[in-house]
Amino acid sequence: MKKILLTACIVLCCVACNSTERDGWKELFNGRNLRGWTKLNGQAEFRVENGELVGVSTMNTPNTFLTTKREYSDFILELEYKVDEGVNSGVQIRSHSKADYKSGRVYGYQCEIDPSAYSGGIYDEARSGWLYPLFDLPQAQKAFKRGEWNKMRIEALGESIRVWLNGVPTADMVCQMDMSGFIALQVHDIGPRQELAGRTIRWRNIKIKTDNLDEELSPAIESIPQKNYVPNTLSEREKAEGWALLWNGVDMSGWKSNSGKDFKKGWTCADGVMTINPKSGAGDIITERKYHDFELSIDFKFAEGANSGIKYFIGANGSVGCEYQILDDERHPDASKGFEGNRKLGSLYDILAAPGWKYVRRDDWNTARIVVRGVEVEHWINGVKILSYTKAGKEWDELIARSKFAKVKNFAGGDGGHILLQDHNDKVQYRNLKIRELNK
Amino acid sequence: MKKILLTACIVLCCVACNSTERDGWKELFNGRNLRGWTKLNGQAEFRVENGELVGVSTMNTPNTFLTTKREYSDFILELEYKVDEGVNSGVQIRSHSKADYKSGRVYGYQCEIDPSAYSGGIYDEARSGWLYPLFDLPQAQKAFKRGEWNKMRIEALGESIRVWLNGVPTADMVCQMDMSGFIALQVHDIGPRQELAGRTIRWRNIKIKTDNLDEELSPAIESIPQKNYVPNTLSEREKAEGWALLWNGVDMSGWKSNSGKDFKKGWTCADGVMTINPKSGAGDIITERKYHDFELSIDFKFAEGANSGIKYFIGANGSVGCEYQILDDERHPDASKGFEGNRKLGSLYDILAAPGWKYVRRDDWNTARIVVRGVEVEHWINGVKILSYTKAGKEWDELIARSKFAKVKNFAGGDGGHILLQDHNDKVQYRNLKIRELNK
Repeated sequence: MKKILLTACIVLCCVACNSTERDGWKELFNGRNLRGWTKLNGQAEFRVENGELVGVSTMNTPNTFLTTKREYSDFILELEYKVDEGVNSGVQIRSHSKADYKSGRVYGYQCEIDPSAYSGGIYDEARSGWLYPLFDLPQAQKAFKRGEWNKMRIEALGESIRVWLNGVPTADMVCQMDMSGFIALQVHDIGPRQELAGRTIRWRNIKIKTDNLDEELSPAIESIPQKNYVPNTLSEREKAEGWALLWNGVDMSGWKSNSGKDFKKGWTCADGVMTINPKSGAGDIITERKYHDFELSIDFKFAEGANSGIKYFIGANGSVGCEYQILDDERHPDASKGFEGNRKLGSLYDILAAPGWKYVRRDDWNTARIVVRGVEVEHWINGVKILSYTKAGKEWDELIARSKFAKVKNFAGGDGGHILLQDHNDKVQYRNLKIRELNK
Repeated sequence: MKKILLTACIVLCCVACNSTERDGWKELFNGRNLRGWTKLNGQAEFRVENGELVGVSTMNTPNTFLTTKREYSDFILELEYKVDEGVNSGVQIRSHSKADYKSGRVYGYQCEIDPSAYSGGIYDEARSGWLYPLFDLPQAQKAFKRGEWNKMRIEALGESIRVWLNGVPTADMVCQMDMSGFIALQVHDIGPRQELAGRTIRWRNIKIKTDNLDEELSPAIESIPQKNYVPNTLSEREKAEGWALLWNGVDMSGWKSNSGKDFKKGWTCADGVMTINPKSGAGDIITERKYHDFELSIDFKFAEGANSGIKYFIGANGSVGCEYQILDDERHPDASKGFEGNRKLGSLYDILAAPGWKYVRRDDWNTARIVVRGVEVEHWINGVKILSYTKAGKEWDELIARSKFAKVKNFAGGDGGHILLQDHNDKVQYRNLKIRELNK
């Protein structure tokens, strides 16, 4: 009896452990038929040919998806594809089709296949559009091989989604919109264009690994930037690059009043947003720690007519230091004060004007970035550098001499300083407060 | 009697023709007193010292201006200045003080004096702010000499205003807001800042020439860009650089219907703006001429939900050619059609996506720029490049093959093409249509 059981076990194991399932990899496509897949939305044809899964462009039918019946959350997916001229396609991951969302239209992360330019980027199908576009990444754009088999590798682990095309990193994104869902192969709508009908996208060697992923994960990507869409969090890559959260997204830990007041009624935390409540009298807040050389990134959004500011090099002089001005230039009277625009958004307040108004988005989140390397300082907004200055020398002394800070002894000097957020009695919101110390 | 008259004439001439008035130059400051000048607005002190005109920073008084009693329209103005630490100043030209504008506050073009960074730029005092900022012009920023005498030269001729500081061009602007007005020397408000009180700005050798300017005008500036604020006009420099107007700002000369319709009811010209009237059925318009390699710059503004486009390489295929898409991405349904954003604002319509939405200003004028050099094409918006592509080769053929234009024979090919503005039944406005042919 014992022997029979053992034999049965061995037989069963051998059935499960065919060559494709060694090391925990599983074939999603068996090379013979479409078992395990379901067609959704359009009527484009999917067929099997010579061990290849073939999607066929079809006129007058919407985007068609061949979706896995199973849902996958964390995985490494590898596949090869070869695409005819003029065909747009993509590999959906963690995607969905729900009756109450656009009548079941497939939506979610799509690892792009498109001979035009952007293969390997991530497009949010039928929802928010480009999440990881390749517009500014020519090296990633060149990863795609025209007319040949291309190898795509996708690593989805928790909030991290990374894509490689032919070994070249093409996307590195952190996002939590979808943590699981089906995988799907797209054949894009071609409308009534007869000349595109019949053109194909071919897939083969579609395999997935869902367990023991640690042993196969690729090292951190360095050649392309990472986009982190989860507010108030640090990705592993950000941590490795030395970033730290200046705000935990939940409460005011790490911050204190700069004047000993009870500031927590004025500064509230909700839904991952830190809000200065108007006319609360709560006063400015500062980080408990001081910072020397650093890169600071903060999202901000202002209510109509609002005034606030991100100050740095705050030390012995109360709330006085350098300030990245946050101001509704169009509606706050301070915009026309000071000298020639040096109290406008993005300026070094009352010291040096900067054209923040050219790049700010009203009624939306904006990203302020301040970089300090020794005495060299930069102000950025939404990816555009708007100011650089040297915080030393005769020029700096002259700037301070004519500013509001002329009487301040050793203005913004000394050994590093705190970061301060200004309560100017107006509603301003902050999130995603991140800092990276440099030259450590 | 004749002899007496002659002698009198000679004496009078000699009085007039002192050394400073040779060649038509006149001293605005006589080196002895403030005759010919009037103090306006603030109470800062102006005095004469060692042949220098000295402005003295004074607490608790607004900006103070020493203005010429005369008004000047066209002139060359030269002066020297030396400025203490922390002092902001400037030379107003073509400026005004009117009881019905901010209670007589001096306003208008100010050729900046500011040790901070931007000396030699043009600031529109008490009106619109920076007209010719030096934010992106480090060479111009370096023209100022700290703690020394600086020489400023201003050439104002018609709409052209140009500034040099110590021989370095620092501003080149075309503007018609003010064609004449007084000249004034500023001492900036210092508020209650006692430490700035008494600091000075010193001027000397302030001389002006108002006649026979042609003989002294400087050659065209090349080292810094020109800003032309007069819509639908070409400056001399633009003409010299090869720019031509694609629209005269007044009527539809140079344009024709692309389908033989009477288009003028749908396309109206008023106040220097060309407007597509909604649902007029007027149809697309094209330039009478064809263009090969070119740089095209067009200001556009769209009404809510609008669709239009700037097409180029228009030839044998009706209204079909390459299109710089103009679309209200947030409200027009076409934004989500096509492939992955390739029908959004700034895209090469239905062919290649571009992130125009990141830089467009809703409810405001935007500048589209298209550059064609052989088969290399670029799309820009508001000074930012958002797309470049090669209109040739296998990649291009593939792009067309999967686009709406797959059936079009020799799409956007051939020997140059017309420029077309699209009537998509929505209100869109255009102005400042300028083209420069390249490689002529």
